[in-house]
Amino acid sequence: MDWGTELWDQYDIIEKHTQSGLELVEKYVKFVKERTEIEQNYAKQLRNLSKKYNLKRSGKDEPDSRFSSYQSFLDVVNEMNDYAGQRELIAENLMMNICIDLTKYLQELKQERKMYLIEAKRAQQSLESTYKQLDSSKKRFEREWREAERTAQYAEKTDQDLNATKADVEKAKQQAHMRSHVAEECKNDYAAQLQKYNKEQSQFYFNEMPLIFNKLQDLDERRVRKLAQGYILFSDTERHVMPIIGKCLEGITKAGTNVNDRNDTMVVIEQNKSGFERPGDVEFEDYSQGINRTSSESSLGTPKGPMDILGRNRSKNFWLFSKKSKVRYSTLGLDLCMTLP
Amino acid sequence: MDWGTELWDQYDIIEKHTQSGLELVEKYVKFVKERTEIEQNYAKQLRNLSKKYNLKRSGKDEPDSRFSSYQSFLDVVNEMNDYAGQRELIAENLMMNICIDLTKYLQELKQERKMYLIEAKRAQQSLESTYKQLDSSKKRFEREWREAERTAQYAEKTDQDLNATKADVEKAKQQAHMRSHVAEECKNDYAAQLQKYNKEQSQFYFNEMPLIFNKLQDLDERRVRKLAQGYILFSDTERHVMPIIGKCLEGITKAGTNVNDRNDTMVVIEQNKSGFERPGDVEFEDYSQGINRTSSESSLGTPKGPMDILGRNRSKNFWLFSKKSKVRYSTLGLDLCMTLP
Repeated sequence: MDWGTELWDQYDIIEKHTQSGLELVEKYVKFVKERTEIEQNYAKQLRNLSKKYNLKRSGKDEPDSRFSSYQSFLDVVNEMNDYAGQRELIAENLMMNICIDLTKYLQELKQERKMYLIEAKRAQQSLESTYKQLDSSKKRFEREWREAERTAQYAEKTDQDLNATKADVEKAKQQAHMRSHVAEECKNDYAAQLQKYNKEQSQFYFNEMPLIFNKLQDLDERRVRKLAQGYILFSDTERHVMPIIGKCLEGITKAGTNVNDRNDTMVVIEQNKSGFERPGDVEFEDYSQGINRTSSESSLGTPKGPMDILGRNRSKNFWLFSKKSKVRYSTLGLDLCMTLP
Repeated sequence: MDWGTELWDQYDIIEKHTQSGLELVEKYVKFVKERTEIEQNYAKQLRNLSKKYNLKRSGKDEPDSRFSSYQSFLDVVNEMNDYAGQRELIAENLMMNICIDLTKYLQELKQERKMYLIEAKRAQQSLESTYKQLDSSKKRFEREWREAERTAQYAEKTDQDLNATKADVEKAKQQAHMRSHVAEECKNDYAAQLQKYNKEQSQFYFNEMPLIFNKLQDLDERRVRKLAQGYILFSDTERHVMPIIGKCLEGITKAGTNVNDRNDTMVVIEQNKSGFERPGDVEFEDYSQGINRTSSESSLGTPKGPMDILGRNRSKNFWLFSKKSKVRYSTLGLDLCMTLP
């Protein structure tokens, strides 16, 4: 079962079908091209996102990357960047392996198809012209034969005419003989033309056209197989990067499991512990044991009150207070000197 | 090793660190939110693409879906639509499981942190006010003691003054006795205040503040663990749909392998074969055997010439030619009648 034998009289159908077949390939290429653009755009947006959040860039007020919670955030952002790279790869391969390759193949098929259609037209034209020759030689034979019949009847009529001279009869017979001879030749020519035409016609219907139609069928089947490969490539292209994308996701999960709350707690301690002792009890200052300025001077060594550890305003801390009170002692002492004569 | 003991004097650091910790969570939520929008946009574009190419919609000049190459194209387009659905699912889950959930958790942590900071300030304030009491009672003791000393010295001076009356001496001694008694009371009060303050101070440095700082440490560690979960969810969300996405890709590959070039060739035959026989040889029309109109009439049954199978213009096909020629015979016949007497 092939087009050459089954569709010998369906040239229009074959022409139309092979045409719309190529159009389907074009449509598929367009479809993949648009998918590719969507993919490129997607990858670009993901890249910009990871650029934006790669806080290393923005040096200022960047938390210390010794904090695992922060380091892992950077890891997530970087994995996202690799992920974007894989989406770019998909776009690239769709473009190269499907759009460009299929378009090239399509052009070749178009050329080949055009060639077959021209072959077909040429064959048809030559058969037509041979038929025209046959038709005219047939008509000539018909015409000449009737002419011959007419002259034969005339010769007979003359022969039976009592008034006709021998010369007249002879002339008429010669005419009839000559005419029938011409007719005979036309008949042979017609027979030859007919034989030639029938040979060419069967050549046309049983060899030339079937061969061309089968070439078109073969071309169409190649077109279909190539398109099928194109469908498979579409999914293969993405499946190809899936393992790497899987690795990116693993990397993100790893970033999550790498976070260590205790570690971060310790980092804060290591970076900020002052090493100071907590203030001990405030001493009793017994003036009744004749405490004097110098001793109260030395007593400045031990804190006189709570350090302002909430530090809303470190300026007026409690050391200052105690200093103030020291000043008061002296002025007080001065007062004494004055009040005393 | 905990903040309560190691960072007892680093309130500012702890306040700042817990603050920037919450800011990191906010930053991550923002990051996921933007990724979600990219994902939604991507899914939307894929959906529109598959809508656009779902040729079933545009009924007119749609190739027959009995062609496997065309049917598979529709399958590819539909798988793309399912694929888009999976990307939408990713966006949805990122929004629900990370953005919304983390934001809610963040608000709770902020509230809790605020509460602890207020507790700390309250404790600091109460310690300060106790210190002020201590300070003033200490100063009162100092003042009263010097006054007592002065009056004692005065009494002694009076006692040795030869011009002083007994009454003067008695009065001065009473004054000195009274003053020393008051000073003694102030000393006791100062001692009591000092004891009270020292008790409260050690309570503050060794119980209250360490407890609050450890609560803040615990809060920060919960924040870190929750953030880590958020990182893991980020990849889990996508990994969750990967099997279904894999199925979409398999579906596309299947569509490709379902394409059958021979099948499509056969469909063209089934749909279009006319079933006509190819034209046989053209007969020899022998006028010499007295061919007549009726016989040439009947001879119309067999084609008189090649059918225009290329059909550039089926109107003037060869059947018409042969009809024309028939007409010619008759007119020709008419001529004969006329030329014959």
